[in-house]
Amino acid sequence: MSTEGLSRRHLIGASGSAAVAGIVVGAAGTGALAPRGNTVTRGDDAPAAGAPGSTTPALALDAAIPFRGVHQAGIVTPAQDRLHFVALDVVTKDAAQLRELLKAWTRAAERMTAGAEAAPGGLVGGGPNRAPEDTGEAYGLPASGLTITIGYGPSLFDDRFGLASRKPVALEELPAFAGDQLDPKRSGGDLCLQACANDPQVAVHAVRNLVRLGFGIVAVRWSQLGFGRTSSTSTAQATPRNMFGFKDGTNNVKAEQLEDLAQHVWVAKDDETGGGAWMAGGSYLVARRIRMHIEVWDRTPLQEQEDIIGRDKKEGAPLGQAKEFDTLDFAKKGPDGETAIPVNAHVRLAHASQLGGVRILRRGYNFTDGSDGVGHLDAGLFFLAYMRDPGRQFVPMQRALAKADVLNEYIEHNGSAVFACPPGLADGEYWGQALFA
Amino acid sequence: MSTEGLSRRHLIGASGSAAVAGIVVGAAGTGALAPRGNTVTRGDDAPAAGAPGSTTPALALDAAIPFRGVHQAGIVTPAQDRLHFVALDVVTKDAAQLRELLKAWTRAAERMTAGAEAAPGGLVGGGPNRAPEDTGEAYGLPASGLTITIGYGPSLFDDRFGLASRKPVALEELPAFAGDQLDPKRSGGDLCLQACANDPQVAVHAVRNLVRLGFGIVAVRWSQLGFGRTSSTSTAQATPRNMFGFKDGTNNVKAEQLEDLAQHVWVAKDDETGGGAWMAGGSYLVARRIRMHIEVWDRTPLQEQEDIIGRDKKEGAPLGQAKEFDTLDFAKKGPDGETAIPVNAHVRLAHASQLGGVRILRRGYNFTDGSDGVGHLDAGLFFLAYMRDPGRQFVPMQRALAKADVLNEYIEHNGSAVFACPPGLADGEYWGQALFA
Repeated sequence: MSTEGLSRRHLIGASGSAAVAGIVVGAAGTGALAPRGNTVTRGDDAPAAGAPGSTTPALALDAAIPFRGVHQAGIVTPAQDRLHFVALDVVTKDAAQLRELLKAWTRAAERMTAGAEAAPGGLVGGGPNRAPEDTGEAYGLPASGLTITIGYGPSLFDDRFGLASRKPVALEELPAFAGDQLDPKRSGGDLCLQACANDPQVAVHAVRNLVRLGFGIVAVRWSQLGFGRTSSTSTAQATPRNMFGFKDGTNNVKAEQLEDLAQHVWVAKDDETGGGAWMAGGSYLVARRIRMHIEVWDRTPLQEQEDIIGRDKKEGAPLGQAKEFDTLDFAKKGPDGETAIPVNAHVRLAHASQLGGVRILRRGYNFTDGSDGVGHLDAGLFFLAYMRDPGRQFVPMQRALAKADVLNEYIEHNGSAVFACPPGLADGEYWGQALFA
Repeated sequence: MSTEGLSRRHLIGASGSAAVAGIVVGAAGTGALAPRGNTVTRGDDAPAAGAPGSTTPALALDAAIPFRGVHQAGIVTPAQDRLHFVALDVVTKDAAQLRELLKAWTRAAERMTAGAEAAPGGLVGGGPNRAPEDTGEAYGLPASGLTITIGYGPSLFDDRFGLASRKPVALEELPAFAGDQLDPKRSGGDLCLQACANDPQVAVHAVRNLVRLGFGIVAVRWSQLGFGRTSSTSTAQATPRNMFGFKDGTNNVKAEQLEDLAQHVWVAKDDETGGGAWMAGGSYLVARRIRMHIEVWDRTPLQEQEDIIGRDKKEGAPLGQAKEFDTLDFAKKGPDGETAIPVNAHVRLAHASQLGGVRILRRGYNFTDGSDGVGHLDAGLFFLAYMRDPGRQFVPMQRALAKADVLNEYIEHNGSAVFACPPGLADGEYWGQALFA
């Protein structure tokens, strides 16, 4: 197989970033990258791609990211630019059907993250009298950094599938928070699939093909497109801006901070609330659809915006400091004798030092979903965050924010869900194997 | 001013395409590119950027596209990857207010397409006690090929603003077509703004800032995000795929086909239905939100899919031919004695030869807007097409399709609008100037 035609137009060059572990650039072995499309001749019945490959100093936004590993990809993977997220309900009562679907999803997800069609038959391999095994809209596109991350909602552990005894203590529905305006049609779900990619067509294609495989077994409960990442999950990435125009996630837990990840993100085998062996190396995902009232925000004076956030707008520096990554000094006073970072500023309330050391790994996306029917854009932040135990991390953090954060005047949480995202898969393993074991 | 920091990471290299007229790469003069952000030092009070610049052989997805010219940008401009489209209603009854807004929009649009903030004050220039003059979420991002195209809906020409006598004959609301399932909340509008860019954050930022400038004067009626282009508008672009997995727009009118553009796309001064001088060099835009029932389509056999479209799925070749750009032969018979392209195939019904020579310039985008509440993704094609007279082009074409196209089993038109997009602006001219003259 030839890899000559692989597009490399999305090379990250300007930033001069060092390579980040886990990014595979270039195909070293046969079938390592099995791209869709015209430029590379690929047997439609090529085996599902594994993930060997050589790493090079350049990060290619087109490249494939290994599907298997200790942890699922899509958590500490440097946050891709675009997102398609879907929550599904299981509509069968047959646990065996569900297990077969999880197996089929594993095969398809592994193929698609390598840049191949969803199934060996591909676009036309099944012949004229069969429906194609891949829906085709990503044919010819490279892997585009696609990751597909699965999560199990609390409702999956009811009495339908024999999983009640496997339910982790940490996998509780979130409590109600002050100000919540949750829409049930944008909340919950038995399962979730998070598809992140640098080309949204690739992310949408992945979700669509997985949903298709689940026809009659699962049904879409809600889905969310994210057009731009609002978090960095690697020190090699620049901090993006959210829809309030501020840099977001400067102090995020990053892929390179292994001790912090172990402490705050990855479930350990002996975590009391973690769920035991099947969740060791996994993480809990909290998803919140946060509508941002951008029209109101946009009429707010700069100083007030900065006081609410606790950072300056242009540089993203903590108030009282000069540079984005300067340490936050909550005691430092301004010329007026008040603390430079106000007592109810968002960065103060959400900071680990104010929450007994709690941190989370944020992985959110900006969204714009049409209009709200009363003359405004329906825009905001689709908040995604990974953590070791939502009850000990997200819940106290959100309680503090819901109580005092001035930002609440400008936002509205209207969707909410929590999922247990199991660890990564070893060779030959499939999603659900450890869960159902 | 330095341009050293301009990101060039999105260079189109692999395709080796020739330069397409109208793409400005690199900044030649002071202020030619006035990018937002950190890497280039720019005075926040820099004059609104003009569009001089040198052209180079490489097409940069990051580059700025000239705002002024004979025609509006965003029509034959090589279709950018992402779209944010908004339809607005005018809520003031004061024509002078509307004219002032159109002037302010012109200034802001010209700045943003050059990569600058929406207003000279920019992110922080207005000082701490004023709301920033730019919302900030695109700060630091390059121009990203942004174009902003304005259109006027039929309802703008009622008795509110003294424009009734200016209404072009061609600017009629579209008639009802068989099968239409139009949602008024996704249809119509006094005005539209089409923002196309290669970075969706830049497109969303542009719409958001223009909407903001119109607070109290206009209100958002509906908006639509498009995640991936489904048309090429230049021979230098590869044909993308729609959500049915087929190449779309192979035979589109292209930027390089000047005679075809003159015949089918640009309004001529003496067009009986065109609207006269103020529309000469402009074009009429038809927008249709087409929900695609992808779940049903995905269960349809390959041969049936190809017969419905009239092209093969993999190559996009007309049935009976081998290559995408081979000429369609509607008479050619297959081995079974039937025409290779079935009598009711989409490409046959929509082809100029079947419609008295009618052609249109398509510029549509794939969309995915969450779920439909009954277990499916709400996905489809946001159809945008430019033409000289909808009544003589889109209407007969859509009548033919609505009557016989087998594709109708799989799609649903649920939004519709038509707009008059005036010609491009000369130096110093502003939107609405010729209209209100």
